Amino acid sequence: MTAELICVGTELLLGNIVNTNAAYLSEKCALLGLSMYYQSVVGDNPERLEELLEAAKKRSDIILLSGGLGPTKDDLTKETAARVMHLPLIEDEKAKENMMHIFKHYNRKITENNWKQALVPQGSIVLYNANGTAPGIIMESEEVRMILLPGPPGELIPMFENQVMDYLRGLNPDIICSKMIKLCGIGESAAETEIIDLIEHQSNPTIAPYAKTGEVHLRITAKAKDERSAYQLLKPLEEELFHRFGSLIYATEESVSLEEAICQLLKQEQVTLATVESCTGGLLAGRLVNAAGISHVFQQGFITYSNAAKEKMTAVPHEILKEFGAVSKETALAMAKGGAAASGADVCLAVTGIAGPDGGTAEKPVGLVYIGIYYRGGVCAEKCRFQGNRSKIRENTVVRALTILRDVLLGVLCFDTKEG
Amino acid sequence: MTAELICVGTELLLGNIVNTNAAYLSEKCALLGLSMYYQSVVGDNPERLEELLEAAKKRSDIILLSGGLGPTKDDLTKETAARVMHLPLIEDEKAKENMMHIFKHYNRKITENNWKQALVPQGSIVLYNANGTAPGIIMESEEVRMILLPGPPGELIPMFENQVMDYLRGLNPDIICSKMIKLCGIGESAAETEIIDLIEHQSNPTIAPYAKTGEVHLRITAKAKDERSAYQLLKPLEEELFHRFGSLIYATEESVSLEEAICQLLKQEQVTLATVESCTGGLLAGRLVNAAGISHVFQQGFITYSNAAKEKMTAVPHEILKEFGAVSKETALAMAKGGAAASGADVCLAVTGIAGPDGGTAEKPVGLVYIGIYYRGGVCAEKCRFQGNRSKIRENTVVRALTILRDVLLGVLCFDTKEG
Repeated sequence: MTAELICVGTELLLGNIVNTNAAYLSEKCALLGLSMYYQSVVGDNPERLEELLEAAKKRSDIILLSGGLGPTKDDLTKETAARVMHLPLIEDEKAKENMMHIFKHYNRKITENNWKQALVPQGSIVLYNANGTAPGIIMESEEVRMILLPGPPGELIPMFENQVMDYLRGLNPDIICSKMIKLCGIGESAAETEIIDLIEHQSNPTIAPYAKTGEVHLRITAKAKDERSAYQLLKPLEEELFHRFGSLIYATEESVSLEEAICQLLKQEQVTLATVESCTGGLLAGRLVNAAGISHVFQQGFITYSNAAKEKMTAVPHEILKEFGAVSKETALAMAKGGAAASGADVCLAVTGIAGPDGGTAEKPVGLVYIGIYYRGGVCAEKCRFQGNRSKIRENTVVRALTILRDVLLGVLCFDTKEG
Repeated sequence: MTAELICVGTELLLGNIVNTNAAYLSEKCALLGLSMYYQSVVGDNPERLEELLEAAKKRSDIILLSGGLGPTKDDLTKETAARVMHLPLIEDEKAKENMMHIFKHYNRKITENNWKQALVPQGSIVLYNANGTAPGIIMESEEVRMILLPGPPGELIPMFENQVMDYLRGLNPDIICSKMIKLCGIGESAAETEIIDLIEHQSNPTIAPYAKTGEVHLRITAKAKDERSAYQLLKPLEEELFHRFGSLIYATEESVSLEEAICQLLKQEQVTLATVESCTGGLLAGRLVNAAGISHVFQQGFITYSNAAKEKMTAVPHEILKEFGAVSKETALAMAKGGAAASGADVCLAVTGIAGPDGGTAEKPVGLVYIGIYYRGGVCAEKCRFQGNRSKIRENTVVRALTILRDVLLGVLCFDTKEG
């Protein structure tokens, strides 16, 4: 079965935003065993969209559309797609209620243009939107299926996961099962080199690497007549990957993030965590707090952006800052130790670095970061050098710090529990 | 003049990588005044690529292609494009030398398949690649111009900046100027309702709204014979937008983010800032620290995730937490006041809320957030209700808190400087 993707939005044609929906939906289609041969982007222009839909109808079984479902006059995806499918638009009571509910909840006034979001093509399947006012739509004909999704990823992703996945699964007689083997602490090329023989000789199951910031995810997928057989195909490959990557694997489920895996580990080991952040300025703690349930193990964090804050909040000795500077192994160690003492946490993660664009020198260039960790009386620190712009450096720092924390909790990284 | 973009690569269709080249090239084309109506992605498949090129030739003046110029058998963009342009491939001496030079530099052996990278369509303009072995190509006919670029961004971007930009500038007699008018504190529909008459009657200059989390951006664009005339066209529209939106506009430049605008304001007003975060867990400070130069006005932040941390770090009275709960106006006020006292900052922003998925009650549902602010002796707090999942609620909280901070700094939001 073939799927085709059409993303609608002038902001994509103008390059205002990166089309992350395309990567997300392509990955999901691959996972569902749908072959995708075309992706397109058009602006909010009904003529060009119609022309593209007519071409797509002829060559693909399923057309996925994203964007253009908003309340503004520019948003014409629904109107155009319904016309191509020869379906009139009618008011949907539940979509209307959902919209009114959301507006009431936000305490906002419904303006005239909002009402068109309650219109849906006659006979279509309506996908109610838990995170916005625009409903998604599935239209079916003998020739083609069209699936309309809202553009904002915060609306598109939950709607796809909770409603569209099951619908698409129902269309395919084969069962496709997949697992995501998630690794941290290894780069994409190194991971690929490790399994190049498996990639070259793959047929069923298959293996596909996805590079993320500081992480590599390996999707293994098997096709079979039933779920049990599919998982039986996956099992030896999964075992082989564990054999090759060992503790670098932090999760084998798509839905488990690195911070959730770490939250789990902290709970398991019954240790509490504190953070002390300079260059990341709260992003590290912010990432940890993504994990629902982190409150059991994470109570507080310190954002010590200035030297004065490092001294006051985490008792970094003035002499250390003066002698070695804020970005140094010595300061990272003192921040970790001081953060642990001030918070009473069992483990304390500290980061200090130069995120740029200014502040770099020949000796301490932009991208230099020290990550310190205190654990049960001992401290150690790692010197890192990250590439890229300010936000890339800060992002990489967060993932590396999480990876170090994980290694310490697993006992992969050990250090003297006397002073390090 | 119209441009069309075709990105070639099976890895894009499988969602293995995000198509950042598309956003980069689209933005550059917009800046060069080229109208882009279509973007497509195809795999490394010569039939489908040829079909797409034939369609693109008929509807666009310039076709930009990225990817598929590598040495492997899969890489067929050059061969296919040359066929569509009816040009034979011939060996280019300089491309060959460049390739041999690079292989020597990296100490790598040239394999048989590499030689095809030295072939170029007869009569084409060759774009020598400073960062890889595949040359870029420009082919011209009366009908169309085709520009082939290598896929890796590290090769594509410098080639585009250093060679293609000037070529494209030379083709367009018109100058296009644009400005981004950035608003916070107003929703997309409300903003559009406010300017619906301007949107309906636009021709030159044009106006286009973009919705962001908690923000709306309006791009205004004018076309003229020279830069001065273009800016003269933009000026009255910009003034009209200021007249209608007033202080909701926080920036008029594409590159200025909300946190940078606030950083600027803090410096201007010579006030220092501290943050106290519960549900956002560091994201608010992390966002502020995106702004390079924030260190002059932001020294520290408190992440008080637990009640104990709220008491210890920001002296929130135990009785307030007991009587009103952690998510309450009273606690938000006490956090703001306590954070200011503990840090000595002039202004202190505090957030406490229920981000979910658990922890909500009928009285205090998921999405309930209080944002407290202390400024020069006074405090006030806003009660917010956000929709969406955990990360959406936290993201919205951050933008709303920044908007409140900005309103206070601007004097739009005032409160008693005695105890609020």
